[in-house]
Amino acid sequence: MNDVIKLLLSHRSIRKFSDQAIDQETVNTIVAAGQAAATSSNLQGTTVIQVNNPDSRAELAQLAGGQKYVSTSSTFLVFCADVKRSAQACALQGGEFTPGMTEHFIIATVDVALFAQNCVIAAESLGLGICYIGGLRNNPADVSKVLDLPENVYPVFGLCLGYPEQDPEVKPRLPLDAVLMQDTYDESVLEAGIAQYDEHMRSYYRQRTGGKKDSNWSVEMKALVGKESRPHMRSFLHDQGFTMK
Amino acid sequence: MNDVIKLLLSHRSIRKFSDQAIDQETVNTIVAAGQAAATSSNLQGTTVIQVNNPDSRAELAQLAGGQKYVSTSSTFLVFCADVKRSAQACALQGGEFTPGMTEHFIIATVDVALFAQNCVIAAESLGLGICYIGGLRNNPADVSKVLDLPENVYPVFGLCLGYPEQDPEVKPRLPLDAVLMQDTYDESVLEAGIAQYDEHMRSYYRQRTGGKKDSNWSVEMKALVGKESRPHMRSFLHDQGFTMK
Repeated sequence: MNDVIKLLLSHRSIRKFSDQAIDQETVNTIVAAGQAAATSSNLQGTTVIQVNNPDSRAELAQLAGGQKYVSTSSTFLVFCADVKRSAQACALQGGEFTPGMTEHFIIATVDVALFAQNCVIAAESLGLGICYIGGLRNNPADVSKVLDLPENVYPVFGLCLGYPEQDPEVKPRLPLDAVLMQDTYDESVLEAGIAQYDEHMRSYYRQRTGGKKDSNWSVEMKALVGKESRPHMRSFLHDQGFTMK
Repeated sequence: MNDVIKLLLSHRSIRKFSDQAIDQETVNTIVAAGQAAATSSNLQGTTVIQVNNPDSRAELAQLAGGQKYVSTSSTFLVFCADVKRSAQACALQGGEFTPGMTEHFIIATVDVALFAQNCVIAAESLGLGICYIGGLRNNPADVSKVLDLPENVYPVFGLCLGYPEQDPEVKPRLPLDAVLMQDTYDESVLEAGIAQYDEHMRSYYRQRTGGKKDSNWSVEMKALVGKESRPHMRSFLHDQGFTMK
């Protein structure tokens, strides 16, 4: 196993950061590393908003459900899926942008995630810690107002960056054979994989909390997919131009 | 700039591979590196199907629009967004899965891309070349049949892996200041950024093709977003359980 793979396997979210700033040149390098990721049909559907204004940071922390590290991390980036830039390029060529295609939504959303993960690897290789903030989708319309996002752009997630002031454990994952399948989807492996992982996670939570947290993965999944989740997303996306044709 | 960032910046798609196989242990390591990526609410919404069967490979190559490296690469993986596994975990706890939420679709799609990009970095760190295959979305229903994908699972893209037998240039990207913005979305930077990049891409294409290809980014974008793109995606996703509530 080489050092890059060791780095990838050592990822954990960091939510407590030192006061040390990240200089702008380093931020630029991190974002340039993100740009180097693959992009479908060269769309380059990612725009990164670096939020420096303390009032905006405080507001976003609030909108993300009171995640204070959104305002206390050294750097906070919002990763936006952007087909506006391509639409403008299309218009330059006398073309007429075809809005609202589900496929464009997928391309841009995937582009953003590939780009962001490259940024994360670059940052972690420099000794920085990171935390993705999906909570921006709690109030995506208000987030879009704070960032002045135009139509055909939406905030997919945020990213906190800073020098770590904590050293949490790596979180266990599902067993490999419940995730990597051969030739066809094999439903028969799911039951054993979930059972094994539930046991693993139960002891992980117990150890981490001195026995206080008694949960496991399937309990977490019941809370996540056993009810409506951010039911505003559909209409928010529609209003933002992503009508899902 | 450290070696990890150099690796990230040196990415280019590889479409011609040597006959050298990738041993299964290496594939497992690459997928385990993918698992280590962040995942929203611990959903772990990624299932990877490693396609070994030569007939399936040939069929997928065809379905992806005749991309022969889908069948000639040493290894071919299909990255699927999967909320079925979580739904099953939810049911184990007596919960009732809430199907079709747009938010679950976003979480799983983003999870897949973060996971895949970690796999790509791991693979490239080992000297392998890769090519993402978004073309699987040309015929996603047929691809799903080949892979026997159940409801609540969809193929986001494929990934060819192998030892490179070509050494293409790194493709230029948009200028950083058209992609990284400060505090708010700044529409005023787009025009100059696109113009600069168009010029850059025109000379890149000319050089690469000995003057034959006369194009630029905005011409490409007109072809991509100036018309309907994979208009079947919406109904395919609906049929697959992703009704986008």
